[in-house]
Amino acid sequence: MTQLQNQRIVLAARPDGRPQPSDFRVEYSAIPVPAEGEVLLENLYLSLDPYMRWRMSAAKSYAEPVGIGEVMVGGTVARIKHSRNPLWQEGDMVLAYAGWQRFALSDGLDLRLLDPGIAHPSTALGVLGMPGFTAYSGLLTIGQPKPGDTVVVAAASGAVGSVVGQIARIKGARAVGIAGGPEKCAFVKNELGFDAVIDHRAADFAQQLAEACPNGIDVYFENVSGAVWDAVRPLLNDFARIPVCGLIAHYNDRSVPGQQVDRLPATMHDILAKSLTVRGFIQTEFVDEQQDDFLQEAAQWIDQGKLKWREDIVEGLENAPEAFIGQLEGRNFGKLIVRLA
Amino acid sequence: MTQLQNQRIVLAARPDGRPQPSDFRVEYSAIPVPAEGEVLLENLYLSLDPYMRWRMSAAKSYAEPVGIGEVMVGGTVARIKHSRNPLWQEGDMVLAYAGWQRFALSDGLDLRLLDPGIAHPSTALGVLGMPGFTAYSGLLTIGQPKPGDTVVVAAASGAVGSVVGQIARIKGARAVGIAGGPEKCAFVKNELGFDAVIDHRAADFAQQLAEACPNGIDVYFENVSGAVWDAVRPLLNDFARIPVCGLIAHYNDRSVPGQQVDRLPATMHDILAKSLTVRGFIQTEFVDEQQDDFLQEAAQWIDQGKLKWREDIVEGLENAPEAFIGQLEGRNFGKLIVRLA
Repeated sequence: MTQLQNQRIVLAARPDGRPQPSDFRVEYSAIPVPAEGEVLLENLYLSLDPYMRWRMSAAKSYAEPVGIGEVMVGGTVARIKHSRNPLWQEGDMVLAYAGWQRFALSDGLDLRLLDPGIAHPSTALGVLGMPGFTAYSGLLTIGQPKPGDTVVVAAASGAVGSVVGQIARIKGARAVGIAGGPEKCAFVKNELGFDAVIDHRAADFAQQLAEACPNGIDVYFENVSGAVWDAVRPLLNDFARIPVCGLIAHYNDRSVPGQQVDRLPATMHDILAKSLTVRGFIQTEFVDEQQDDFLQEAAQWIDQGKLKWREDIVEGLENAPEAFIGQLEGRNFGKLIVRLA
Repeated sequence: MTQLQNQRIVLAARPDGRPQPSDFRVEYSAIPVPAEGEVLLENLYLSLDPYMRWRMSAAKSYAEPVGIGEVMVGGTVARIKHSRNPLWQEGDMVLAYAGWQRFALSDGLDLRLLDPGIAHPSTALGVLGMPGFTAYSGLLTIGQPKPGDTVVVAAASGAVGSVVGQIARIKGARAVGIAGGPEKCAFVKNELGFDAVIDHRAADFAQQLAEACPNGIDVYFENVSGAVWDAVRPLLNDFARIPVCGLIAHYNDRSVPGQQVDRLPATMHDILAKSLTVRGFIQTEFVDEQQDDFLQEAAQWIDQGKLKWREDIVEGLENAPEAFIGQLEGRNFGKLIVRLA
């Protein structure tokens, strides 16, 4: 393991329920050599995101699964180490989708140049990147918050939820966050400025949520599902909008039918009785039409102090699997990023 | 029981699961006398519709429940028997919401005048009434069928489903109907002109549905839920639209948790993975904006032979409870109407 080797994390096995460290394997190999037209990327930061759990499973979701023995996928901030592509210069800082590895090749088509003077390049993976755009496009296009509306979002200290609540407030709505534990709750309320925050670990969580939403819920930005959905559902107002962005509570579900209650009829009942809109989305759907507006507006909101973020930085690629496993259980605090350099 | 008495059917008890005849009671009373500004209506036709099952339960849905001892609600075609309202004349034929009874009073505000020369006044309760408008507004506004799309609808011989499939075809989409039994299936295919029809009683129903939808499903007009949803869900295409208009399979559900499979996580998974839109609606939402267009377009489609309907006429108000109970089990064949006169 020297600087002259590539370090990569590959999918060793498909998880059965909660991923285990043994589902990942660290490998070392020669640093790849770019062909004509290619560039060699050195990844500096790797984004860890809950959607990666889906890609570990064999079932096709909205993208193909990662193959066994293949490098785990993921967004990265990289520097161009060597270029054989006339469009890219050595030293350029770029946003890439280069995966869980130190070095990678690219044909240059999937890269976006980052401002070389950018103070925090890792924000291209968070508040100014895919998670921020997910919040922006899903909330504004599907959620359509109006002044005075109540907008509820879980994982409110996370990369997506934190942006959802702050944009809701920018649009004149009331933002109610849900987070796990007193430290995250204090951050959501005091730093991010949400109007209210509820700890989902509280025994009377549903009761507290109802009290925090005296006028009901107009927009529920769904990124967890599970018990949070059960508490949100009775509070939804007629014509409420539910952008479905993630279902982290179910990502580790095993398909073991047991002695359960079927919760589908009650949900369908409310969809009909309250004229709800439930709409799944992946941010890629909105990129062409909205990404430029997002980057401009979000940068402005950051300058104005209206849009804040927090990162949870893990040092070293070899610690990515454990950090990712923890993320699925809510152990990260802020946008989870691995620093590779 | 003479012509000089009013005959009414009131809610005697709230059903526990499937309604029983004993949940209804026939009552006789004096014909009411209109006050100044009121009219006396004589109901000629009463519409029976699945939504009435909701109104029999104590839980508020999208409307208040019928009280114990109160007349069952419902749309009617009525003649004005006596008028003390200058806007209405004796003999006027009107669409009313006068419930399960022979005579009723109205202040005249909730009536719509029907063309006195109308050949089939009962169509104001079906293809040209609330069920037809439910199909029109839900399919076009939420379902948004495009030429070449596959549109699936259950209860395809019924008042709503039959119109959904025919309008889908008018808009250039492929209509696949689901119905119960060979007679209804033949009607849907041969009379209504659907592209395909599946009998939901077939043992290999899901397999047959998949074969009838080789390009997947773009619009599923949900009016039954239950097992049909389970068969439809895997066939839905990315960005499919699901107007939720009814859930007849669940209307008689008892809230007895048993050894079940929780079907919510799989549904939420597909909503996310396929970017589905699931939208509940009640037609009243669209009346102001769309009802005039509907009445005009539907009349034209009928003239052109593109929009057909079938009625299932029951004679006598005293037979309404049994007919309604049968409707919840799919025993009617076409728009279910009680003739009172």
